[in-house]
Amino acid sequence: MSRPFLPFFSPEDGQSGSARTGKDGGALHAPGNDGKRNQEMMPEQLSGPAEKRSLAVFPLLAVDGGGTKTDAVITDKTGKILAKGKGGASNYQAAGEESAAETLARVLGQAASALEDRLGLGRKDYRIQRGVFALAGIDTAKDQTLVEGLVRRAVQTSGIQIEELIVENDALSTLIGATKQSPGVLLIAGTGSIAFAHDGKGNFYRSGGWGHRFGDEGSGYWIGKEAVRAVLRMHDGREKPTVLSDLVFKHLRFDNHEQLYNWAYGPHYSVDEVSALSVIVEQACTLGDPVSRRILEKAASELFLLVEAVTEKAGIGEKSFKLLLLGGVLQNNERIRHELVQKVREKRRDAEILIPRQKPIELIIQRGLYDGEETG
Amino acid sequence: MSRPFLPFFSPEDGQSGSARTGKDGGALHAPGNDGKRNQEMMPEQLSGPAEKRSLAVFPLLAVDGGGTKTDAVITDKTGKILAKGKGGASNYQAAGEESAAETLARVLGQAASALEDRLGLGRKDYRIQRGVFALAGIDTAKDQTLVEGLVRRAVQTSGIQIEELIVENDALSTLIGATKQSPGVLLIAGTGSIAFAHDGKGNFYRSGGWGHRFGDEGSGYWIGKEAVRAVLRMHDGREKPTVLSDLVFKHLRFDNHEQLYNWAYGPHYSVDEVSALSVIVEQACTLGDPVSRRILEKAASELFLLVEAVTEKAGIGEKSFKLLLLGGVLQNNERIRHELVQKVREKRRDAEILIPRQKPIELIIQRGLYDGEETG
Repeated sequence: MSRPFLPFFSPEDGQSGSARTGKDGGALHAPGNDGKRNQEMMPEQLSGPAEKRSLAVFPLLAVDGGGTKTDAVITDKTGKILAKGKGGASNYQAAGEESAAETLARVLGQAASALEDRLGLGRKDYRIQRGVFALAGIDTAKDQTLVEGLVRRAVQTSGIQIEELIVENDALSTLIGATKQSPGVLLIAGTGSIAFAHDGKGNFYRSGGWGHRFGDEGSGYWIGKEAVRAVLRMHDGREKPTVLSDLVFKHLRFDNHEQLYNWAYGPHYSVDEVSALSVIVEQACTLGDPVSRRILEKAASELFLLVEAVTEKAGIGEKSFKLLLLGGVLQNNERIRHELVQKVREKRRDAEILIPRQKPIELIIQRGLYDGEETG
Repeated sequence: MSRPFLPFFSPEDGQSGSARTGKDGGALHAPGNDGKRNQEMMPEQLSGPAEKRSLAVFPLLAVDGGGTKTDAVITDKTGKILAKGKGGASNYQAAGEESAAETLARVLGQAASALEDRLGLGRKDYRIQRGVFALAGIDTAKDQTLVEGLVRRAVQTSGIQIEELIVENDALSTLIGATKQSPGVLLIAGTGSIAFAHDGKGNFYRSGGWGHRFGDEGSGYWIGKEAVRAVLRMHDGREKPTVLSDLVFKHLRFDNHEQLYNWAYGPHYSVDEVSALSVIVEQACTLGDPVSRRILEKAASELFLLVEAVTEKAGIGEKSFKLLLLGGVLQNNERIRHELVQKVREKRRDAEILIPRQKPIELIIQRGLYDGEETG
């Protein structure tokens, strides 16, 4: 999960952040209460001449859609993958609406064709109980509405019959998949930073994730930005020069500060390139650089603050809960992870800290097969 | 001076930051050593039939060019304005190269025509000894070369004969105009922040001014950004809510954080709008808001650090020097100005702190009439 994770807004904080709609785009309904789960049919139930077949039912289509790639899988009720599709970006903020919808339709079509080839089915011979679309780029209520429209269009284009659609921010899917009905916190620090909490009663909360301009403290972008800022302060005489300056220049292949400035405001500047500097900061820290150490310690404090804020919001601070750490910074930057884990252990003794080994799509499958208990 | 002031680079820090070229674009030469100042002719010397006139000479054309407007004046040797021209943006970074060159040519033409109408001259009947182009948008050596080209083209288009061209960052012109050969520091905190120092021996230094992404600490943009960041942290539960949140929402006419987020990453976002929030921060501070007070105190510290760094660089810390404070933040934000002045008085007792009352063009005229003593 190296793409920037941006904030997720539900219409009102503290409410469920996912939208569930019937195929007709109707009102929200809680899954698992509609009796449809008992209609599941496993492939071996399909027998006899086609015209006499009862309609086959598969429990889940799970989609993990990001800013660079999109995965779709159809599974059985144990989560075993029966068919796959794969494509490019379906984050509409990255790819644009049209392209995102086309990618989704193509990836769905691929997965469906693979299933049909394998089982000798036609597109009209089966239906899928639930489609979970865990997508990056759903950051606001406006995004939610827009992306639901894209998904509905893509499903229609693909010709697949899906009874219930769940369209939600990918991070939220991951959290539900990993913790199910237990209280849990997901902290993501990749290019951006954000924390989600689930109180175990169907209520979700978030803190952070306000993007590179006004938020994302402790993220890769934030660390890289602090590094560039420090290098420029060193040049100005506002800070004592350290090895960080040389390492940043070497990494960017610049000879002087004017090149650095031209890059920072030129057409080749990107949030990702700044984020990549976070690796250099860790290198410098390993070499004993005090400025880099200060940046990484501040990053760990900021990430801890995100966990604390969202834990308090969700009211799960006094209980045991799972804390999932995801994203490039937490997975690769040992100094930050170590500092953060120490802080969490001191303050929240009952937290179970996990760095999930599953792929995102596996957690999303778990989320899709989970029916929740919306008692909140 | 409400436009963002960006860094000024001379080819090598510590060298003079202005370019002086003959009309032919030739090599640098020190003004005042070429004997041409004695060829000055005041208008009353113009008499007799035109064909017998000796060529009239005016000492100065001064241009103050920014991101929103451009002023040009022709003066006598006492700095008295004989003719004026006025136009839009000539900061090529804001307006584009073509438009900046056209604006300059038009404004020069206006000033020249006003002079000609007043004194009954034709364009070929006089020449101007020196043109000082004090322009925003000269931040790097690359800018310097590009803008010199624009200025030369504009002068050619206008048909005015100018013997010596000085093209330099407007802040640098202002510093030289205000301090002449004495050591001086210019601190600007408007939308951006930057400090220049002149050691009184022809050497110039700068600190800060690295733009909104990686610098401009203590500027209006920086203050506004810290305010938005604090408001979002309050929403997240990472900071206790204060009156600042309400005031920022009221100012931006937003009802919720989603609107704030959409604005921050939408097409209407601008550095100027963020900078305008600095006024709100001062209002909140006046109401006793601790978060706003903290932001303004940090801004004052950052601005003091800029002054300190550039003073050290220029090696003028032990001497008396003039400290000029310019820009909207320093002129309008009493809290910051007060804090900053206290810090300077504690550390640099011999500094004479000035908030210039002259208009920028008046300081640029002083700069244009100053011949310098390049002993550095």
